[in-house]
Amino acid sequence: MSEPIPTKQPLRIIPIGGLGEIGKNMTCFVYGRQAIIIDTGIMFPTQDMPGIDYILPDFRPLLDLDLQLLGILYTHAHEDHIGAVSHVLDAFPNAPLFATPLTAALLEVKLKNSRSKHPANIHIFQAGECLELGPFRAESFHVTHSIPDCVGYGLHTPQGLVVFTGDYKFDNTPIDGPASDFARLASWGREGVRLLLADSTNADTPGWTSSEKVVEAAFDRVFHQAKGRIMVATFASVISRIQLAANTAERYGRKLAIAGRSMQGNVRRARELGILRIPDRTLIPLNEAKHLPAEQLVLMVTGSQGEPAAVLGRLAKGNHPQITVQEGDTIVLSSHPIPGNEEMVYRTINNLIQRGAEVIYNQLEEVHVSGHACQEEMKLMLHLTQPEYFIPVHGELRHLSQHAKLAKEAGVCKANILMVENGCVVELDENGLWERERLPGGYVYVSGAGVGEIGPAILRERESLARSGFFLVAAQVSALSGELLGEPEIISRGFVHLQDSAETRALIRKTVASVLANHAELPIGKRRKRLQENIARIIHQETRRKPFLLCLLYEC
Amino acid sequence: MSEPIPTKQPLRIIPIGGLGEIGKNMTCFVYGRQAIIIDTGIMFPTQDMPGIDYILPDFRPLLDLDLQLLGILYTHAHEDHIGAVSHVLDAFPNAPLFATPLTAALLEVKLKNSRSKHPANIHIFQAGECLELGPFRAESFHVTHSIPDCVGYGLHTPQGLVVFTGDYKFDNTPIDGPASDFARLASWGREGVRLLLADSTNADTPGWTSSEKVVEAAFDRVFHQAKGRIMVATFASVISRIQLAANTAERYGRKLAIAGRSMQGNVRRARELGILRIPDRTLIPLNEAKHLPAEQLVLMVTGSQGEPAAVLGRLAKGNHPQITVQEGDTIVLSSHPIPGNEEMVYRTINNLIQRGAEVIYNQLEEVHVSGHACQEEMKLMLHLTQPEYFIPVHGELRHLSQHAKLAKEAGVCKANILMVENGCVVELDENGLWERERLPGGYVYVSGAGVGEIGPAILRERESLARSGFFLVAAQVSALSGELLGEPEIISRGFVHLQDSAETRALIRKTVASVLANHAELPIGKRRKRLQENIARIIHQETRRKPFLLCLLYEC
Repeated sequence: MSEPIPTKQPLRIIPIGGLGEIGKNMTCFVYGRQAIIIDTGIMFPTQDMPGIDYILPDFRPLLDLDLQLLGILYTHAHEDHIGAVSHVLDAFPNAPLFATPLTAALLEVKLKNSRSKHPANIHIFQAGECLELGPFRAESFHVTHSIPDCVGYGLHTPQGLVVFTGDYKFDNTPIDGPASDFARLASWGREGVRLLLADSTNADTPGWTSSEKVVEAAFDRVFHQAKGRIMVATFASVISRIQLAANTAERYGRKLAIAGRSMQGNVRRARELGILRIPDRTLIPLNEAKHLPAEQLVLMVTGSQGEPAAVLGRLAKGNHPQITVQEGDTIVLSSHPIPGNEEMVYRTINNLIQRGAEVIYNQLEEVHVSGHACQEEMKLMLHLTQPEYFIPVHGELRHLSQHAKLAKEAGVCKANILMVENGCVVELDENGLWERERLPGGYVYVSGAGVGEIGPAILRERESLARSGFFLVAAQVSALSGELLGEPEIISRGFVHLQDSAETRALIRKTVASVLANHAELPIGKRRKRLQENIARIIHQETRRKPFLLCLLYEC
Repeated sequence: MSEPIPTKQPLRIIPIGGLGEIGKNMTCFVYGRQAIIIDTGIMFPTQDMPGIDYILPDFRPLLDLDLQLLGILYTHAHEDHIGAVSHVLDAFPNAPLFATPLTAALLEVKLKNSRSKHPANIHIFQAGECLELGPFRAESFHVTHSIPDCVGYGLHTPQGLVVFTGDYKFDNTPIDGPASDFARLASWGREGVRLLLADSTNADTPGWTSSEKVVEAAFDRVFHQAKGRIMVATFASVISRIQLAANTAERYGRKLAIAGRSMQGNVRRARELGILRIPDRTLIPLNEAKHLPAEQLVLMVTGSQGEPAAVLGRLAKGNHPQITVQEGDTIVLSSHPIPGNEEMVYRTINNLIQRGAEVIYNQLEEVHVSGHACQEEMKLMLHLTQPEYFIPVHGELRHLSQHAKLAKEAGVCKANILMVENGCVVELDENGLWERERLPGGYVYVSGAGVGEIGPAILRERESLARSGFFLVAAQVSALSGELLGEPEIISRGFVHLQDSAETRALIRKTVASVLANHAELPIGKRRKRLQENIARIIHQETRRKPFLLCLLYEC
C-alpha cells in the first residue's frame, strides 16, 4: 500500500523572532492563504546592543506570503506579547485584534502612546469564549500568570486541535482570579490533541512554581516589621503584584501611591475595568504622599530591573524630583533580575542601602515568584493534554531542550517532538509534523525614531568604539610644496585624555611632519593612507590599543 | 574619673579597593609606621567599563603615609587576591612576600608572565606557622575554599588579636586537604579575639554551603551517563575542581587533557608541588587527545564565564583550532556566572547545544558549589572566635549589611560592629574601634599597556559613543569668498549606514552649503560652531539621536 494522499492542506506554523527566546513574541498559523497571528511582542536589547531601545520580531517575510490575515489574537498584556502592536498594524492595517478586557485596555493604551495612526479595532472576549476565524476555531482558556485576564488557545483546525499555552503557571491559589482551566485542558486531552506548543521558560527548574499566595505571606512579614515608609518595586505591567501590595497596605492601614508614569497608566485602566480592586480611600496621588507620616505610606514604584531612568534607579542615585530615600525606609524588590540585568540591580540595591534603606530582595524573602511553570507543571500540562506532537516554545534553546526531555519522560514519542528556531516553517499534516524551509529575517532594532536602520554591522562598530574610542588627526598641506600648513588638529574621544599626554601629542605631530616630508611626491590620497598607517602603528606601539583612527589631509 | 590615656598607639586598618567588594583585594594593617599588607588582588571590569582589562585597587595613598612595609602576606592564589602583585611591587620594590607553597608557586608564575622586573622574594610557609613581623605576629591557619593551601591569619598586635578569615567556607568533607582549623579558631575565641574581619560573600544565602564532595557525586552521575567526550569548564585557578575531574576521569578509565594556557600552567606547577595529584598515565597532552576514542576522553577547559576568547567561548563559536564540539559531547559548566556574565554564559550554553552537545550546568546538576561560607557558617565563625569587635568584609554593601545582622544575632554588641567602605581608615585602640578619615582613591583601570590613564570621564565618553556612534563633517572653504570648495566629507561610525541613507547625506550637504553661504562674514571659528549647531539639530530632527558630532572647517 502506498502512503495516503493528503486530502487537506497542511497547517503551517511560523514562530517569528530573533535569536533569543523562540516562539514567544509572535506566532503565525496559516491554512491555505488564511492566517491568524498570536501575540505581537517586543524583545529587550542585550548588553551587546548599546543604544537600542527595543527589538521587533522580523515579520516582514510574512508580507511575501500573500496571506489573508483573519485576526491577531492576544494571550496577555505584557510587553513581550503586545509591545509591537503598532508596528504590526503598520504592516497589516486592517487586521482585527482579539483580546480579553484587560489585555484590550492595555493594547489601547499602547496604541495611544505610540501615536498609532490605526484605529484600535479590538474585539473583546472573555476567557472560555470561541472565536470563529475561517478555518480556525480558536477556543480561549484561562491560565494563571503574573497578570490577570490571561489566556491560552485551543485552535481547532482542519489538521486537528492545536493547543497553545501562552505564558502560564498552574497557580492553585491565585490572588487575582480563578485557577487555570484544568477541566478544558483535560477534556481536550481525552478528545485528542494533535499538537501542543507550551511555555518552556523555567524548563531547567525542578518542582512547581510557588503560588502568588507565597508572596502575600512575605509581604505580610515585611509590612509587619517595617517602621517607616515601604516602597515596592516591580514591573509596571505586573498587575497581580500591585493588587497584592494594595491588599497588604489596606490590611496594615497604610495608603498606597504609585510612582512611575507607565504604572500609573496601567493602574488607572485596570481599576476602571474593575480588574484591579483598590478602594478610593487607599489609593492617593503621589504628590499627597509627602504629607503623610512615613508609617502610613506604601509607594509602588517602577525600575525593579535597575533601569537608571525608572523610579527606583533615580531613588538610588538621589535624583528623583518628589521622593528621597531616607533612614527607616523599607524597599522591596518584588522581581527577579532578567539575565544581563543582575549587575545593575545589585548596584541599585547597594546604593539604596548606602542611603539608609533596608532593602528586601528575593534572596532574603520570597517577595517574588515566577509567573511561569516549572518542570512538574510542564509535565502536568503534557499529561492533561496528552498531545500526539509537541513543540517546546517560549524559551532559549537550553530551555527548549530540557522541555523536550520532560515531554519524552511524560510519554510523548521522541520522534514526535520538534525543536525549531524562529523563522522555521513547521507543517502539520495527516502524516505528521515536519520542519520545512526557514524564512529570512531576524532582529529589527528600534533606536530613537529609526526602525530597522541599525544592523549587526553598526552594533559591531559601536562595540569597537566603546572598547577603544576614536582618534582623529586632521592636517592641511600646501598644494605646491606638500608642506604641512599650521598645526595638525588632534581630537580623541573615549581613548585617553590627550591633554594629559603631551608626549603622545608631540609624537603624533612629529609623525605627521615626517610622513609628509618623506612622501611629498605621492598623490594626496596615498599620502593620507601612508599617514593613517604610520599613526596607527605609533598609537599601538605606545598604548597597545587600537582606537578607530581617522586621518584627514587637505591640500590648500 | 577621666578616660584612660592610651599608652599604646592605635592599630590602623585600611581596606583598599574600589566601589564593588569591600575589604577583599588588599588590606593594610599599620602600627606606628610599620605595616603589613594582606593580599594584592585585582578586580574585574563591570559591563559599563568597555575596553578595561582589569582593575587595580588604588594603593597610591599608602605611599604618602611613609610606611615601613614589613611584608605582604597572601591568603590564597586566586586572581582577586594575587593578580596585582607586580604592580604593588613596582610601588614597594623591596617588600618580602609570604605565602603557602601553592600560592607562592602561582605568584611566581604571575610575576614571570607579567615580566616583572622585581625578583620574587617569596618566603614560603606552611599553614599553622607564625610569621614574626615587627609588632605583628601573624599566625596562619588553614581554611577550606576552592583552591588548596588556603589560609587566614590571626594577627597578634599590641592592640590584641585580630582574626582575618580570608575567603573561606567550612567544608567538612573537603577533597583537597584537611578541614578548616576549627581548633585554632576556638582556642583564640577562648583567649579573646579583639576584632574579626570575615568573608561576607554569601551573607544573603541561608544555610550551609555544600561540600565539594557534592560536586564529586554530581560528576559521578554525569560521567556515568556520558557516552562520548566529556568537557569540564571551570576557572583556571580552581585547582580543587581540576583534582575532582581528574579523580573521576581515573575512576571511569578516561584520560584527561587540559585546554587553555593559564590552566595548563597552573596544573603543571601544582603537580610539581605535589598539591594536584594526577598520575602520568591519566594526563595526556591536548594534541594527543584527538587520537583517543571519544568515550575515553575528558577535557578540562577554561571559559566558564562565557569569555569569547577562552576555550569554551571558542568552542561555542566553532573557532577553536584543535577541538570541535560534536553530537554526543557532554559539556559540564562547573561554575556559577559572576553577576554581569549571565547573558554571555547562557548564550554560550545555547550555542553549544546548537552544536549538538549535551550541556550540564548548575541548575540541572550540582556540578558547582560556592567556595564561600553561607549564613550558618558565618554564625559558626562568629561563635568560634567570639570577637569583641566585628568588621564584615569581602562583599558588596548588601552582603556586609546582612553579615552585620548575623553578627548581632550571634551575640556581637551592635555598637561594636562597623561597616566601612574601601579607603576608610579604621582605628582599633584600648577604647574601641573607630572610623577615621577616608583616603583618596578608587579604581585604577588597566587597559592595554596603560595603567591609570583611563578614568571615569573616558568611560562615559565610551558609553556615549557606544549608544549613538559618531558623525564627522569636514569641509574646505575659500579664504577669500568663504565659498565651499569641493564636496564636504561625511564620515560616521556606529550611527547608521550613510551609504544606505542618500537622503541624510543630501540634507547634510545642503545644510553645510547654506550655513556657509549665510555666515561668510563670520570668523572661521564661529562659522565652525554655527555649522556644528545646525548639523546637530538636523540629525536630531531626522533620527531622534545624538551621535558625537565633529564639524571641521578649513580655510584655503
